[in-house]
Amino acid sequence: MNSVRNLSFPAPFHRRFTSSNPAARKRLISLGQRFGALAAGGLALAAALATLQSNSNSALQCEQSAMDAWKSSKPSIPDISHLDPKVIEDTQKPMRQRMETYVKLLQHRIVTALAAEEQAETFLVDAWLRKQGGEGISCVLQNGKTFDKAGVNISVVHGILPPAAIAQMSADHGNLVQKTGYMLDGPDAEVSGLPFYAAGLSLVVHPHNPFAPTVHFNYRYFELTHPPTLKDGSPNPRYEEAKKTTGGATEPVAWWFGGGTDLTPTYLFDDDAKHFHHTLKAAADRHDTAFYPAWKKWCDKYFWIKHRNEARGIGGIFFDDLTLPTYAAQRDSYIPLSDGDKATRPLSSSNAHDQESLFATIRSLGDAFIPAYLPVLQRRKTTPFDEAHAAWQAIRRGRYVEFNLVYDRGTKFGLQTPGARLESILMSLPLKARWEYMERWSGAETDMPRGAKDEGKHEKVTMEILRHPKDWV
Amino acid sequence: MNSVRNLSFPAPFHRRFTSSNPAARKRLISLGQRFGALAAGGLALAAALATLQSNSNSALQCEQSAMDAWKSSKPSIPDISHLDPKVIEDTQKPMRQRMETYVKLLQHRIVTALAAEEQAETFLVDAWLRKQGGEGISCVLQNGKTFDKAGVNISVVHGILPPAAIAQMSADHGNLVQKTGYMLDGPDAEVSGLPFYAAGLSLVVHPHNPFAPTVHFNYRYFELTHPPTLKDGSPNPRYEEAKKTTGGATEPVAWWFGGGTDLTPTYLFDDDAKHFHHTLKAAADRHDTAFYPAWKKWCDKYFWIKHRNEARGIGGIFFDDLTLPTYAAQRDSYIPLSDGDKATRPLSSSNAHDQESLFATIRSLGDAFIPAYLPVLQRRKTTPFDEAHAAWQAIRRGRYVEFNLVYDRGTKFGLQTPGARLESILMSLPLKARWEYMERWSGAETDMPRGAKDEGKHEKVTMEILRHPKDWV
Repeated sequence: MNSVRNLSFPAPFHRRFTSSNPAARKRLISLGQRFGALAAGGLALAAALATLQSNSNSALQCEQSAMDAWKSSKPSIPDISHLDPKVIEDTQKPMRQRMETYVKLLQHRIVTALAAEEQAETFLVDAWLRKQGGEGISCVLQNGKTFDKAGVNISVVHGILPPAAIAQMSADHGNLVQKTGYMLDGPDAEVSGLPFYAAGLSLVVHPHNPFAPTVHFNYRYFELTHPPTLKDGSPNPRYEEAKKTTGGATEPVAWWFGGGTDLTPTYLFDDDAKHFHHTLKAAADRHDTAFYPAWKKWCDKYFWIKHRNEARGIGGIFFDDLTLPTYAAQRDSYIPLSDGDKATRPLSSSNAHDQESLFATIRSLGDAFIPAYLPVLQRRKTTPFDEAHAAWQAIRRGRYVEFNLVYDRGTKFGLQTPGARLESILMSLPLKARWEYMERWSGAETDMPRGAKDEGKHEKVTMEILRHPKDWV
Repeated sequence: MNSVRNLSFPAPFHRRFTSSNPAARKRLISLGQRFGALAAGGLALAAALATLQSNSNSALQCEQSAMDAWKSSKPSIPDISHLDPKVIEDTQKPMRQRMETYVKLLQHRIVTALAAEEQAETFLVDAWLRKQGGEGISCVLQNGKTFDKAGVNISVVHGILPPAAIAQMSADHGNLVQKTGYMLDGPDAEVSGLPFYAAGLSLVVHPHNPFAPTVHFNYRYFELTHPPTLKDGSPNPRYEEAKKTTGGATEPVAWWFGGGTDLTPTYLFDDDAKHFHHTLKAAADRHDTAFYPAWKKWCDKYFWIKHRNEARGIGGIFFDDLTLPTYAAQRDSYIPLSDGDKATRPLSSSNAHDQESLFATIRSLGDAFIPAYLPVLQRRKTTPFDEAHAAWQAIRRGRYVEFNLVYDRGTKFGLQTPGARLESILMSLPLKARWEYMERWSGAETDMPRGAKDEGKHEKVTMEILRHPKDWV
């Protein structure tokens, strides 16, 4: 899921903070040290950050180590010295700024937590500017002892979304074109596009050890706003109206959150699957017990590899269009409770939500990533394995490639977008993948023993679950 | 290019001649030995085969070894004992039968030639029947010393093509729907589909040595015929007419040949590229000097990885819709001389062709595979290489995966076809592939030396040609 909505269409580099070029890197280290010196003095900021995360106890330890790493000014951690964490909970600030601050601090926290699990390699931090508006920070670690590849990217982009793109998005966001209330197309078009804003974080972790599962997550906020002028250059009355309504900040045409967290084991362990799902469910349940069951179902449905008749992974949660009834296609219910099938009537939550409670949901889910995944990684990352395990891991990663290149809406959208930052879009692909003809465990030959009596058994158990997704909680 | 037109949509196994299951394999070996005993007695057939191939001198040696292997009844070579090679040149026989015989014998010849280059592994021969009509033989060798993966598949399939599928094919085969002359859709539809027949051979070879190039080829014959009855059950007058015209064999509604041979080096050697292209050009020139230049251009255009702005390989030839003006959308010219851009008027050949001369062209191109590729493989397959070369090979093979999964029309068609034989469709994918973030030679960081002074140079030279395809002859 990398699309306009998940923000992975950054443009080519405008400037680079870091580089794999040794000379450039040396310059960046000294730059990092200067930032570090500033950061070390920012005790108030550190305290504020600590407070901010205090509602997520299990993440506190990681938070502490993130702060420590940040203070010791490693260039492999993104700089957050310019951010004010208080913004996140400041309801007077626009949602854009609150979400941007949240995803940047979460990126910092996660990169720090993952870096602590790795011994060999450090993250490469690439900051880029998008020519058409916006910025991004890609943190990628590859070829490590714990991680084959781990990428944690944020992007904050804005610009004008042309009518064709709005129409394309409308397929996924029921009646988006009508919802805007503008004539977007044809000779009577009122506007030449709508301003958009998107902020989000996306992550893919492919561990080196075949017994440690791959994980993916992405949370994003998307906004469409009124253009100040109409196509003919005259002032737009709806823009003036929108400014009035909220006294300063412009009331958007539409906004929504989207995202999800999902797990892809090479070798399934029930305990890992249960812990992962329980943690996500607990985070969602704090806001609405209707969320988790619908989003787990949606997850299993979205990550389905049709030609294999199997799921990419064992699930997690997945949703899109998380907005208020006022902004939804069907105003009597919340779209995000749908299981992704737009033809059927979306499920309803009996709870009342406002943007504040939906943002709080997103933050709970974002905060739940480290407690959901890290314990699983920690207990599997040093399990002894042999070549056959590694080969099966590579085969399963081939399936990951198949899903991402053939089905993933966001990857497809990204590849079709001229000037997209390819390295960010394809960061999700594993370091290594393998395709064997008539491969024995996941293909037609599942009854084929590998040699020893029970070899192939664990693979078969995993495949069984991928073919018949399970609830886990 | 694996589609209806290239025949890679076989159904799940109906029966299997070989299996990777040891017990089943043992049964098959004894079956193979029985076939072998029959074959060894077929001296007349062997002589006929030798004659058949005598116009392709450079392939004679391989032909001999194919015959030897066949006689020694290895189960790793497909059985051809039931085939009569004289059929290929018998103009009284229907083209279906001639093409089927040709591709089966060519498969046998190529499998034998490739097997002779390998020391560690043998081909797995899988014969399958398609429930809806037809059969196929897949010969795959993987994880060998010379070949990471080599697959040589034939399929001969027939059935009814529903109107929706004809409409889909029409996009690539200008006005195919109109050309049929039938009302295919809506309440006035005359027929519920058209009978089709397709026979072809497709091959992908991924050598183990990074200095030996990957090669792909595919040649196919496709026919649409009149249904004996109309949708309402009444006899079809056009079917009766078609039977009359040709006295027995039914005159088809449309037929065409398609195919191509293309090379994908990991490390480019000019001599290899020149030899490969010269051999293909010589084969095409024997029939029409207008063929090669148009088909090389079409090849470079088709195998373009848009999001990378680079070609999958360095070219070869590629064409589709090779038919007579009578059957073509634009009756004053041959569609196959187009470069694939259907909007522009196809180029014309000044030569007159008949089905016989087009079939002869196909056979020359098919026969040219071994002389075009084998010498290149032979001079590169034992070149010493290190881990860095292997890593770059894996990265380039990742690009191969990207093309096949994202752009290849046939792969996409195959993946969308319910009941398709996935193992045959995805046989084209390499054994190993790799995706590195910010990879240094083919990505944004091409100015990055690898250590020694000229390391990375060969990679850069190769990338230059992939970004700017060259003519070679």
